[in-house]
Amino acid sequence: MVKYLFKIVTCLAFTYQIQSVVAQQDKRIDRVEPLNWWVGMQYHNVQLIVHGNNIADFTPNISYKGVTLEKINKVENPNYLFLDINISSNAKSGTFPIIFKKKGEKDILFNYELKDRNKGIKAQGVTSKDFIYLLMPDRFANGDTTNDIVTSLHETGLHRDTLTSRHGGDLQGVINHLDYLDQLGITALWMTPALENDEHSTSYHGYANTENYHMDPRYGTNELFKTLTDSLHRRGMKMVMDVVPNHFGDQHWTVVDLPMKDWVHQWPTYTNSNFRDQVDFDPYGADIDRKTMVNGWFDTHMPDMNESNPYLQKYILQSNLWWIEYAGVDGFRIDTYPYNDPNFMAWWAQQIKAEYPNFSMFGETFVNGAVNQAAFAQGDMIHRGLDTHLPGVTDFQSKIAITDAMTQPFSWDNGAMKIYNNLSKDFIYQDPTRNVVFLDNHDLPRFYSVVGQNSDKLKSALTWLLTTRGIPQMYYGTEIYMKGFTDPDGYVREDFPGGWLGDKQDKFTEKGRSQSENELFNYISTLAQYRKKNPVLQSGKLMQYVPQDGIYVYFRYNDSKTVMLIMNTNDKEFNLKTDRFSQRMSNFHTGKNIISGEQYSNIQNIKVPSFTTLAIELQ
Amino acid sequence: MVKYLFKIVTCLAFTYQIQSVVAQQDKRIDRVEPLNWWVGMQYHNVQLIVHGNNIADFTPNISYKGVTLEKINKVENPNYLFLDINISSNAKSGTFPIIFKKKGEKDILFNYELKDRNKGIKAQGVTSKDFIYLLMPDRFANGDTTNDIVTSLHETGLHRDTLTSRHGGDLQGVINHLDYLDQLGITALWMTPALENDEHSTSYHGYANTENYHMDPRYGTNELFKTLTDSLHRRGMKMVMDVVPNHFGDQHWTVVDLPMKDWVHQWPTYTNSNFRDQVDFDPYGADIDRKTMVNGWFDTHMPDMNESNPYLQKYILQSNLWWIEYAGVDGFRIDTYPYNDPNFMAWWAQQIKAEYPNFSMFGETFVNGAVNQAAFAQGDMIHRGLDTHLPGVTDFQSKIAITDAMTQPFSWDNGAMKIYNNLSKDFIYQDPTRNVVFLDNHDLPRFYSVVGQNSDKLKSALTWLLTTRGIPQMYYGTEIYMKGFTDPDGYVREDFPGGWLGDKQDKFTEKGRSQSENELFNYISTLAQYRKKNPVLQSGKLMQYVPQDGIYVYFRYNDSKTVMLIMNTNDKEFNLKTDRFSQRMSNFHTGKNIISGEQYSNIQNIKVPSFTTLAIELQ
Repeated sequence: MVKYLFKIVTCLAFTYQIQSVVAQQDKRIDRVEPLNWWVGMQYHNVQLIVHGNNIADFTPNISYKGVTLEKINKVENPNYLFLDINISSNAKSGTFPIIFKKKGEKDILFNYELKDRNKGIKAQGVTSKDFIYLLMPDRFANGDTTNDIVTSLHETGLHRDTLTSRHGGDLQGVINHLDYLDQLGITALWMTPALENDEHSTSYHGYANTENYHMDPRYGTNELFKTLTDSLHRRGMKMVMDVVPNHFGDQHWTVVDLPMKDWVHQWPTYTNSNFRDQVDFDPYGADIDRKTMVNGWFDTHMPDMNESNPYLQKYILQSNLWWIEYAGVDGFRIDTYPYNDPNFMAWWAQQIKAEYPNFSMFGETFVNGAVNQAAFAQGDMIHRGLDTHLPGVTDFQSKIAITDAMTQPFSWDNGAMKIYNNLSKDFIYQDPTRNVVFLDNHDLPRFYSVVGQNSDKLKSALTWLLTTRGIPQMYYGTEIYMKGFTDPDGYVREDFPGGWLGDKQDKFTEKGRSQSENELFNYISTLAQYRKKNPVLQSGKLMQYVPQDGIYVYFRYNDSKTVMLIMNTNDKEFNLKTDRFSQRMSNFHTGKNIISGEQYSNIQNIKVPSFTTLAIELQ
Repeated sequence: MVKYLFKIVTCLAFTYQIQSVVAQQDKRIDRVEPLNWWVGMQYHNVQLIVHGNNIADFTPNISYKGVTLEKINKVENPNYLFLDINISSNAKSGTFPIIFKKKGEKDILFNYELKDRNKGIKAQGVTSKDFIYLLMPDRFANGDTTNDIVTSLHETGLHRDTLTSRHGGDLQGVINHLDYLDQLGITALWMTPALENDEHSTSYHGYANTENYHMDPRYGTNELFKTLTDSLHRRGMKMVMDVVPNHFGDQHWTVVDLPMKDWVHQWPTYTNSNFRDQVDFDPYGADIDRKTMVNGWFDTHMPDMNESNPYLQKYILQSNLWWIEYAGVDGFRIDTYPYNDPNFMAWWAQQIKAEYPNFSMFGETFVNGAVNQAAFAQGDMIHRGLDTHLPGVTDFQSKIAITDAMTQPFSWDNGAMKIYNNLSKDFIYQDPTRNVVFLDNHDLPRFYSVVGQNSDKLKSALTWLLTTRGIPQMYYGTEIYMKGFTDPDGYVREDFPGGWLGDKQDKFTEKGRSQSENELFNYISTLAQYRKKNPVLQSGKLMQYVPQDGIYVYFRYNDSKTVMLIMNTNDKEFNLKTDRFSQRMSNFHTGKNIISGEQYSNIQNIKVPSFTTLAIELQ
């Protein structure tokens, strides 16, 4: 009875608060972020950012069991308050008011919610067991035409014939084609950023977010993003979120109304980054070069965030943690990794792993050179002097190697030798299998174009992609021979045919694909499904042989299986004598082509067609 | 009185032994190596290799205070005995007989000498304070025509017009020109190997030694080599000996009469090394590739020594220690470093450093890539999994970088950027100042030819050489514009003009050099002498700035001096505004050109001529 009475009181109080907040919030508080927090998080000292007209004139109070308002931080701009709250382990989920008081003025109430933890699948981590599909949500499929144009946002144009315009793709479009990805053998989805990008132009690209806690309404709602993630999880697939700590869009609400001058890196005149990853680690580097690299702006519309500002540090970290807990994200891809403050990023990664030990992260390391790349990877195996705590990197060195293998004539140091050379240095990583390998992405020429639209070479490279060490990532449309060079980069970001109602072709269906497209689709699918079922290609050991005569031979093997890979980079069939490979082959007599099913009754000599990588399970 | 008597007895015994040995040695024992040893060495467990016709039929005995014959090792070939002797710390110097006995045969006596340690200057170590001059003794100067042809050796031809023939240069020729080297500012001499190379052809190149304990008589005696080293030491200069543990010449006495089959690496059919340094460290490497790299032969005339054979290990190590103690050598350059057995080389280096802590070593690492090079350097800073204990490497990566800086147009990743990029990775070395930097050597095209005989570029590169970090090494003749590409390599090994009696020109003298040659000679000399006097260029800190507009700026600085280096790789004069470099320049107002003496009253703007590296001491 007492309990019941309490409930009614709570309910009355709640109703009152809601009304108060609604009444007051319109006037003074336009937002509090994080949108909510959870009870029982290891990260329980949360800093709320409160924004409202001259809100700093008010003094906030919190009265909720287990929640302490530890510090009220006023900053340069009176429109902000930063509230340090401590959520103790005995706090219960629920909503409580934050009451803002000022003498002579009516209280302002803001309801803040503590939720119970997300009990669903989350933070699984993306590993070498996975096969990542990278897509740009604006360019993949338009599943909801009602959100094509959102008039409250700056960019309202939708012109599919214009590379830099929005095209209308959205989260619903992705949800509609999960079967397709499943058929292809994909196990993880990486979308370029889908947070609100309320920029005046080229907002489709997504790397200038203007909100940290809201999907772009042209893509869908936060709830729909969670639906997408849940749908992936139900299929045994994972979600990789693309996060951009280095910069926001210049229309980000905290940039339009800066909390403080040093929220972003300010320069006397506009200053670009020097785009030199080397200065991050150069033991002889000059201060000005380092500062220009890390504090210079990536682009005029992308303010470089001051990641040494403790308010900003928490703002970024909390928003990232929020998405993991809220939507169940499994891993992050971190944009423009070398441009960030290295100490901040190390701290940031440690915080995330402390909360979600299985969560995975890989940073974009668009750099040239093994040392340059490894300098950003966890463990500081090369004694740079800083452990980034970044588990994985985008393996641009492998990308360069496979490109050269497919396009350069074989010679002492070129062609397929590049692959061998690159892998031979793998001891500079704590765990190179955490590196994400790829042929191309949204910033690079499409691989099919790079190899002169040679389908054999594309298949050969894809076979390598799914059989070398690391986490393979494929860019959308590769499976249907999409083409394009980056002149400009919009050409590598064209719409997936069939993603839009009324598209002349629907390449999402077998019927809509040409024979050769189906052949490629099935090639990838067959290999990816084999990989999904066979740990040998996920986590098996690797042995490689020094390439000879344009032939690169390597093996993946574990206690139960051995797969032999033979890459022929020549323009002629090659009859390979295999006695040199006895260390891995001596226990086997026959083999089976993983993709074609062809049996090899004699593996002493294997004929390898030109520009082909054979994948043979030894038997 | 007792003492006196003992002396006489010893003397009598000695006389007796000598006679016996002379009598017997002719018949049975043709050699015992090491030629002698020393008392008071840390390395006191010496293994004597004894060679003589069926000497294994005899049982050796040693009776000398402090010396114990611990083990007599018989091996496959009865012409050998390996005697493990222990020289205790109380052993005194002196000569004692090793008596070989066989029932029914006359004793064979061999006198072995224990000497007192060499009290002279020795094992100083070559450091970044030094400036190394590399020369080939056959091609530098002929100081003794009486040794031009030694008829007891296989190659007796002497044809100065033939690239592959012997030309007659020798140790006396080097001794005769130490003043010249001194004037040039040289502080250390590295000669390509001068040990006996009794090969049938191209014996001049020296990398196929047939003796470990004897200079090639065409170069001079062991005593003359010691004279040369002593002469260098008297001038404050040092001697770097070029050692070749990986292979001997096929006419080496131990190869002609193998002690055992696995003294050298034997293959069913002749097998070359695969020349792939990568397999030394490739974590995915195959056994056969590794074996082929390390055990394959470098050349048909250079048997690959089995460095896992404990007899050979001691034979090599002892001969190297012997030369340090005997002649006072200061450092080793180690030929074809990656081709050696890595575990042996690590042990070998530790043994040498245990005996001579200041001794220096640098290995020839003719490899492509920062990781590839650092994999061979001491400390295993990149986690290859093996500490080579090799203090320094020949810095081929710097060589590639300076070559590209002087020959490629400046661009995002090319030209002078290569120097910046290369140094930015220096944290992968325990101490990069132990690396030997160079423009060329006896295996590479001469730098003056590489830069299209552009004297400005040569001077610019030489300025870099003497001001960047590391131990600078210059190849003989660079200072007089010697030219040549390696087609064949004899073209980069031409005779130094003036080294032979009757040479039309004598470039060793100011009078014999042309005006431009003198200008270059003086340019190098001025800079080298400045470097010799000023620790700032030897061990000062380095700061470098990201190159812009084809201009690479760096500084060497210590508490007392700052030297600014400005490399203009453009074909036009550049007017450099220096405000960007304030971190190093703010305390200075003027400067002085180290080479020309020119004063800069305004260092806010500095005019840099095309293809020039200015070296300015800031004031």
